[in-house]
Parts: sequence; C-alpha cells; structure tokens
Amino acid sequence: MNTTHTLSPNPTFSGLHNPTFLQACLRHATPYTPLWLMRQAGRYLPEYCATRAKAGSFMGLATNPDYATEVTLQPLERYPLDAAILFSDILTVPDAMGLGLSFTQGEGPRFARPVRNEADVDRLAVPDMHKLRYVFDAVASIRRALTQADGRGRVPLIGFSGSPWTLACYMVEGGGSDDYRLIKTMLYSRPDLMHRILLINADTVAAYLNAQIDAGAQAVMVFDSWGGVLADSAFQSFSLDYTARVLGQLKRFGAKGETIPRIVFTKGGGLWLPEMAALDCDVLGLDWTVNLGVARALVGGIEYAPGASGPGKALQGNIDPNVLFAPPAQIVTEAQRVLDSFGAPYQRSGTGPTHIFNLGHGISQYTPPDHVAALVEAVHSHSRRMRQSPLEMASTI
Amino acid sequence: MNTTHTLSPNPTFSGLHNPTFLQACLRHATPYTPLWLMRQAGRYLPEYCATRAKAGSFMGLATNPDYATEVTLQPLERYPLDAAILFSDILTVPDAMGLGLSFTQGEGPRFARPVRNEADVDRLAVPDMHKLRYVFDAVASIRRALTQADGRGRVPLIGFSGSPWTLACYMVEGGGSDDYRLIKTMLYSRPDLMHRILLINADTVAAYLNAQIDAGAQAVMVFDSWGGVLADSAFQSFSLDYTARVLGQLKRFGAKGETIPRIVFTKGGGLWLPEMAALDCDVLGLDWTVNLGVARALVGGIEYAPGASGPGKALQGNIDPNVLFAPPAQIVTEAQRVLDSFGAPYQRSGTGPTHIFNLGHGISQYTPPDHVAALVEAVHSHSRRMRQSPLEMASTI
Repeated sequence: MNTTHTLSPNPTFSGLHNPTFLQACLRHATPYTPLWLMRQAGRYLPEYCATRAKAGSFMGLATNPDYATEVTLQPLERYPLDAAILFSDILTVPDAMGLGLSFTQGEGPRFARPVRNEADVDRLAVPDMHKLRYVFDAVASIRRALTQADGRGRVPLIGFSGSPWTLACYMVEGGGSDDYRLIKTMLYSRPDLMHRILLINADTVAAYLNAQIDAGAQAVMVFDSWGGVLADSAFQSFSLDYTARVLGQLKRFGAKGETIPRIVFTKGGGLWLPEMAALDCDVLGLDWTVNLGVARALVGGIEYAPGASGPGKALQGNIDPNVLFAPPAQIVTEAQRVLDSFGAPYQRSGTGPTHIFNLGHGISQYTPPDHVAALVEAVHSHSRRMRQSPLEMASTI
Repeated sequence: MNTTHTLSPNPTFSGLHNPTFLQACLRHATPYTPLWLMRQAGRYLPEYCATRAKAGSFMGLATNPDYATEVTLQPLERYPLDAAILFSDILTVPDAMGLGLSFTQGEGPRFARPVRNEADVDRLAVPDMHKLRYVFDAVASIRRALTQADGRGRVPLIGFSGSPWTLACYMVEGGGSDDYRLIKTMLYSRPDLMHRILLINADTVAAYLNAQIDAGAQAVMVFDSWGGVLADSAFQSFSLDYTARVLGQLKRFGAKGETIPRIVFTKGGGLWLPEMAALDCDVLGLDWTVNLGVARALVGGIEYAPGASGPGKALQGNIDPNVLFAPPAQIVTEAQRVLDSFGAPYQRSGTGPTHIFNLGHGISQYTPPDHVAALVEAVHSHSRRMRQSPLEMASTI
C-alpha cells in the first residue's frame, strides 16, 4: 500500500496527467521519485539519429520546430519519464547575438566571431528575441504534442538556457576548451569587460526564458555547466551573481496562473551549495560528486504545514551517467544507492525535502538504450518501495 | 619587525638553508609562507625547452638523471622558490609495469597495452623497482646538486607519484580521457577487477615512494589528479582507500632520522576534505575551487604546545594558474587574496595551522616567466607583512 496522495487544486498540477515532476520541484510529496535525464533526446537513440539525418545537421534539427518536437518526444515513447525537456542547444543564444555558430564534424561547436577584446564587447547587445522565434515555436509545438484528448498534458515541458557565465565561456573561447585560458585571462586582466559581457548575457537569458514561459514552458532550468571551473570567490562574482540576476527577472507564473519552477544546475558546484541556497529558485541540480544526504541537510529545508512556506530547495540528480555502461543488475544497485543517499521521502501534505532523480550530467551517446529502461524502472520501483512503511518494505524486498 | 623564529634542532630542518617548506608541512611557524609551483620545471621556461631539445624527447629527458637534474634546478635559478620537485612523470610507473608508454606530438601519453579485461589484469604485478632506477638516480643527483659548500641543502626536494586511482585511469583508458568511460565501465561492471588493479597500484606506489625516500627525497606527494571525476562513495572506495593503503606503507624517516612529510592532492576533491582529514598524511593539497579559510576550519587543526601533537593538516594551494596570464598588478592582488583567505598565520613555538602557497594545478606552458617572478615576490612579501602586528601592517600597506 502506498500513502494516498490527493491532487492539489493548484493549477500548476491540475492540467497534467503526471504532475510528479512539478510537485517534487515545489517540494510536494509524490507517490514515487520522478525522473528525467539530461540530454534524454540524443544520439544514444537510433530514432534520434534517423531524424537528425533527415534534418541534415544539428542546427537543421534545432531550428525546425517539427523536428525538435519529434525528437523531444522520442524518449517519452520508449520510457515512462516524468518530464520532457525542449530539444535545443544553449548556443542558440550567442548565435542570435551574431557570433556565427557552426558545428564541425567531431570538433564540436565553433564561433566565427568570438568575443576577445573591448571592440568585440562594444558590439554585443541583448539580441532581438525574434531571432530565436524557432525555439519558442518549438516550445509551443511540443506542448501541443504533449496534450492528450482530455486537454491535459502527459508530462510537463522544461525550457532551458545556459547560464550567463557558461555562455560567456563559449563566446570568449570560441568553442569548447580544456583550460579556459582565454576567458580567465579576460576575467583576471579585464574584469570590467567580463562583467559587461555577463550583464548582457544575464538580461538575454532572462528574456529568452521568459519567452519560453510565454510559449508554454512549465519549468525552466539554467545550466551553469562551467561554473565549476572557476576559483572560489570568482565563482560568486562571475557566475552566481549573474544567475541570481536572471532569476530576479523571470516570470513566476504561466498564462493560466500556474507556478513555473526554476532549476539551477552548476556542474562542479557542490562546494558552493550553502551559497546557492540563497538563490531565488526552487530546485538545485547536483552532479555525482555530491552526497545527496549531505546536500539535503545543507539546503533541502524542513517540513512546512500545508499553505505555509519557507526556505529549502528540491534536489535534482545525481547518478554518474557512466553507470549506464554497467549491466542492468549493477544499474539497479547504483540507482538504489543514489535514492537511498537522499534518505526518507517526504510524504505529508505540506511541503518538505524532495528529490528528482536525474543523471549528474548529460547521457553519453554510447549508452545502450535498454540500460536506460532498466534505470527508469529501478528508480520508479525502488522509490515506491521507499514510501511503504518499514515493516511492509521488509516484506517486499 | 618579524617575529623571531629559532631553528629547531630537529634533523628534518637543520640540514637545510631554507627549511620553510618542511616546517610548514609539519605545521611549524615560518617567517613567511613558503611556496613552490606544481610543474615548476616545465615548458613555460625557455631553458627547459632547450634541455628537452637536447634530450630529444620527453622520456629522453625524464630517464636521464643529468638532464632531470638540470631541469629540476632551472626554476630555482630564476625564482626564490622554497622547494624543488623531482622532474619526472607519473606514467613512469605503468611504463615499468610493461604497458608500453609513448608520447605522441600534441596528443599526450599513450599506452600500447592498456588494461581492459581480466587477462590484462592477470598479467599485472608490482614491477621490479630496478626498472625505475633512473628515477632514484635522478633523486640522488638532484640532492647532490642542491647541496651547498657547507654540506647543507638549499631547499628540500619533493618526490612524488600518481595515486593508485589516477594511474589506473591512464592504464585502463590507455591515455588521457574526457569522460573516463572505459575505466568507469570497469568500475561499475567489474569492481573486482578494479580493486585488483588498485591493490597492485597501491603496493607499487608505496615501493616507488619508499625508494625515492631512500634515494634522498625529503617529502613525498601523491597526485590524485583524477580522484575528482569519481562519484561520491566511489571516490571513497576506489581512490581514498588506496591512497590510505599507500600512506600506511610509507617510510616515516629518511637516512638521518629526518621526518618525511607526506602530501596528498586530490584535484576536485574539496567536497571530501572531511574524509581526507583521516588520512595519515601531513599536508592536503587543494585546487582553486576550495576556500582556504573554510578548509582550515575543517581540517587545519588547532594549536598544540611545543612537543605535543594532535590532528590537523597543513594546507597547500591554491591559486588558479590562469591568474598568471593577467598583468603583474592583478597577480599581486589575487595572490594576496589567496593568502588572506587562509587567514592569520600561525606564529608560535608549537604546531598550528599552516599554509604552503602553490597553484591549484600545474602551471600552463603558455605562462610568461616574468609573471611567475611577480607571483613569488607577492607571496613572500605579503605573507611577511601578514606576520607583522596589525598596527605595523596598517603602516606598511
């Protein structure tokens, strides 16, 4: 027997067949731990590769709302995931700023016009959001595709952006980097230029996420993929402060009055969790180096009575994506270990500490698709068992 | 006026003109904060490149004790550094195991016979240390070169090894890696094989460091460069436990009864500092993501009266090497920030929290050599000022 959970009349949840992800984001109890996977629509799926081949290129895929809708839904057809995430790329934003994005085979993204000096910074501005219309059209198209015959959605749709700092890394380096030498040279030599870029990026990211919310995104996530390469004190000044600026400008509600949860994920940011607790967001994403029990004690908050509210973040993460290369039996063991590290699920009628299962980083293109099925099944079944009473649990294990 | 420091009759210090590094390792007060730089003998120095050109290749340099001595001393000729570190490479160890090391231009190290399956593991064993004789000969040669006319050394010589886990990364991946997919697949699929490799590596590393101590190394350092790629709980089982096994087998004293401090550096390991506090070592190295003041509070220990001893680690680190790309004025500011983040220097006659200044990772080959001079000067002069009374400090800044 599971604890009975009554759907709140909250418009955030009532329009969905499966609101578990949004419930957990807002620290409400759920009958099991919801999960989705970073980069769940991706190259490990043969059907994704087929669509990408039709589209001709990565940007051909990302800029066509029909294709973007098709690939966003593919993982949901295979696995009972609890959220969809917009298929796109964080580099659409600097591309709209005119930096000239291209993807070269095997070398990753490149910008034709990277930002390297004061004249380059002088040319930067918040881009016209019409240049990113294809993204908002994709959001609207995916929302339509997720809507069932009764008018309710299957699962919520997450919109996203890179963080101001992470976008700046690509803009200054001109692509990926091993050592972040160019951007850190600018950061330490000309902090004034660095701050000018980050201010423009923050205002751009806020406008971009607000337009995704207007188009129908039901939660938004800021990927601070490279926050963890910064030194202590530089992280606070050059990443965290600008993520906070984005959050301060975000719309809190969708068109029907539903709350739009905001998620912040800083890869390699575990040491700064106490400072991230002060961010005005609902969920913190964690990579696999963080112990979920320790994170819960630091930032997970406490229980509040129904209708009351107080500080505390839902936690999202954090299994090592490389676990998916092991046989299914070991995947099950490791998934259980991650769930157990978070500890006892919150099961009452107010708000309390909650967990959204995810990987600690994007899924690898080499992942066997049937291993993902084993992970999803293990998370759902073990997290349901965790909600049984200890006595019942002993009898079912 | 600086506080007066009397040299202890301790044989660990009395054989050196400049024992500040060893004093700080053992949590004794020093008149300033000693510093050395990871990879201080390296490609950023034109004289290093000249010697390497003579040697013909990287391994030609590392396997020739005369060349190794020459390049080890080069940075000491330029800068008043407080320690020398053996010029070598962590991959000498798996090479001695028969894996076939080569360095290809621009692609980094490769092993001809990586360890990928059970048959490969069956063939692994602790290698005969005679195969690494060139390393021990280099240690002895460098010690001779550091000895002054009065028989005392200029500065102490640090020996080193990769950690069991970090060596295993190269042995299984066959070279560097972006995602550690092969070794993590083994770790999660066949933990038994992983543990067999790590056991052999631990016993090898202990024998290797003990032979360096016998040859004259005055401190030893374990580089766990890739510990930080592991998930929480995997780090403890597959990296930390084997570093502890190494430490348990190390000689504590050199030929003249001098204490041999042991340093452990886990890049990306800041989250596990509380667990690393239990390691039987003297110093913990930290990368730039860690706040030194927070680390000091966690693991730096407290003051003990002369002759007494108790738990607590000296801390080594942790400026971002990319700071060295900024102009000297900013380098000075950032160096002071790192020194100040550690807080008030320990200045009494027992033992207490101490700091050894270093980079948070190896110096970049693109570093301008005169910027290193600015860093060294800033660390020495600011850390001397920190030891003045607050009143005097106010008048000199």
